[in-house]
Amino acid sequence: MDTVMKSEKSTSTLFRSAQAVVSLDLIQQPLQLVESRLRRELRSRFEMLTPILQHGTMLGGKRMRPALVLLAANAAGEPTDDHITIATVMEMVHTATLVHDDVLDAAATRRHVPTVNAKWDSQTSILVGDYLFAQSFYLAATLKDTLACQWIGEAARRVCEGELRQVHSRDELDLNEENYLSIVQGKTAELCRVACRLGAAYAGAPSEHVTALAEYGDALGIAFQIADDYLDLWGDSERTGKTLGTDLLQAKMTLPMIRLLETSSPQQHQQIIQILRGPAESRLSQLQPLLQASDARSYTKDRAQAFADQALQSLTALPDSPAKQLLSDFARFAIERRF
Amino acid sequence: MDTVMKSEKSTSTLFRSAQAVVSLDLIQQPLQLVESRLRRELRSRFEMLTPILQHGTMLGGKRMRPALVLLAANAAGEPTDDHITIATVMEMVHTATLVHDDVLDAAATRRHVPTVNAKWDSQTSILVGDYLFAQSFYLAATLKDTLACQWIGEAARRVCEGELRQVHSRDELDLNEENYLSIVQGKTAELCRVACRLGAAYAGAPSEHVTALAEYGDALGIAFQIADDYLDLWGDSERTGKTLGTDLLQAKMTLPMIRLLETSSPQQHQQIIQILRGPAESRLSQLQPLLQASDARSYTKDRAQAFADQALQSLTALPDSPAKQLLSDFARFAIERRF
Repeated sequence: MDTVMKSEKSTSTLFRSAQAVVSLDLIQQPLQLVESRLRRELRSRFEMLTPILQHGTMLGGKRMRPALVLLAANAAGEPTDDHITIATVMEMVHTATLVHDDVLDAAATRRHVPTVNAKWDSQTSILVGDYLFAQSFYLAATLKDTLACQWIGEAARRVCEGELRQVHSRDELDLNEENYLSIVQGKTAELCRVACRLGAAYAGAPSEHVTALAEYGDALGIAFQIADDYLDLWGDSERTGKTLGTDLLQAKMTLPMIRLLETSSPQQHQQIIQILRGPAESRLSQLQPLLQASDARSYTKDRAQAFADQALQSLTALPDSPAKQLLSDFARFAIERRF
Repeated sequence: MDTVMKSEKSTSTLFRSAQAVVSLDLIQQPLQLVESRLRRELRSRFEMLTPILQHGTMLGGKRMRPALVLLAANAAGEPTDDHITIATVMEMVHTATLVHDDVLDAAATRRHVPTVNAKWDSQTSILVGDYLFAQSFYLAATLKDTLACQWIGEAARRVCEGELRQVHSRDELDLNEENYLSIVQGKTAELCRVACRLGAAYAGAPSEHVTALAEYGDALGIAFQIADDYLDLWGDSERTGKTLGTDLLQAKMTLPMIRLLETSSPQQHQQIIQILRGPAESRLSQLQPLLQASDARSYTKDRAQAFADQALQSLTALPDSPAKQLLSDFARFAIERRF
């Protein structure tokens, strides 16, 4: 997983890893329109609120969901003005979930930027997240039909469902891979899925291409989350902007831990459970040797690779195009990035 | 403000006060359809989540917004199945705001029922509120056009705007009545306004009737909030289900306090500010004699009355009907209730 980030912060023009370069030149202009649309949508009649609302959009960083909307549109048909709206909506919904996640996790920074709860307070964060949700739904409803509202409403509900299941499975140390994947599908993959699906549907794509791109987004999102799990244990905290072992601190079950538990002997299993039930701060250092001695690291890599392959496989339904090529590069980048 | 609550908890069939009886017999059947729709919409594929999701709907109590949707429809035209959907959506959005409010206020009970944050935790509450928002927008998007999504999205954004302004004006002890009313319009009146407006619009009412009912809902909501401010100081905590002086504890500026500050001498003003900046627990007992010596109590009653009158005035644009009569009763009930 050798990756160097070369993107400019504001426009995300380039993602580079050892095996893939994702240059977003093809959608540079619409991405800039999305940026200005975002700023415009988050200007309040009440001046005091504008800096609070706009702060949230600085936390997203990668603008991956808008890029997926625009690339799916290009790969499956003709992009229109509607895609700018949809891409803006997707980034706002994503930001809303980040702002609320930062309250849930009591996080102080995200990508080296202070969170809304750190800069103001958690009351402000809850309300800013709600504002972003509400405004994004309003914006989706300015399109000509209810399709985007339906799909986005449903996707947002699934994200919450995944997060609720995650919160309520924190003490479930016997979470198996199947349930883990089903939680991740909701929590992370669903918004990537609907970004691709909407991009294709609003470009007038035939239904089999809409489905193929939805499946691509889903597999990509899962690959991305597994890579996140990996980076939480074996990443470079300077590059990810996150402290190593954050998931362990918060007792979130991740794929490496699930694998470790599933492959350990009964005694070792007991020992791991004791560590996980013990003081949060010492979990990482106590588990590291056990993780190293197991196949958890290579297994996690392999599973991320399998989902990236599945994403690539979904793309074969589409005719070749520069946008399709970039979507392939994205799938490779997802698992090889360092941030 | 002499009121006796006679409504049944589950169906809210009757609101009775000294001067008004609001019997909901006219809309009893559609209100029951809304109840079962609510329960259905909040059943998750994941069994563990259903009790958490449904708990929220027990906190709402009055079902006032569904009643407004249905009465506006009856007063302005023909109610349809769409009104059941809209009424359900309005109650879900309202519940979402209550669940998040209870986190903001760290409230342990609401109407004698433990809050989601008390029964589970604030992480669960944040996610349940988000789930309710998302699912309500999805449901609104199952209607034939985007109108409901647009208006509800916009209304929800204004609610958040009002709440954000309230949070950020907590230390503004010089909040004037104009700004107070503008915050209340967003925070409380907006959902009543949009409930009436959607009820009328989806009943095929002419635009002047839609506007009249929107204005009715707006004035009603403001009257309701001023009555809430009143009840926080001079209500019966057994009946309201809230501890007296909760707003003072949380440093929320209410109309009686604004009036007291605006009419006090410079020395008294100083004294009040000191009390408000002092320990939260002693604010109520220290301020009570000052409030009694001022006209804050009668002024607050008069202002609530003025908004109730404004609501009644808006109704004159509509032809007489049993539903219109009930809407008038509601306006009287709003300011005379004790809960």
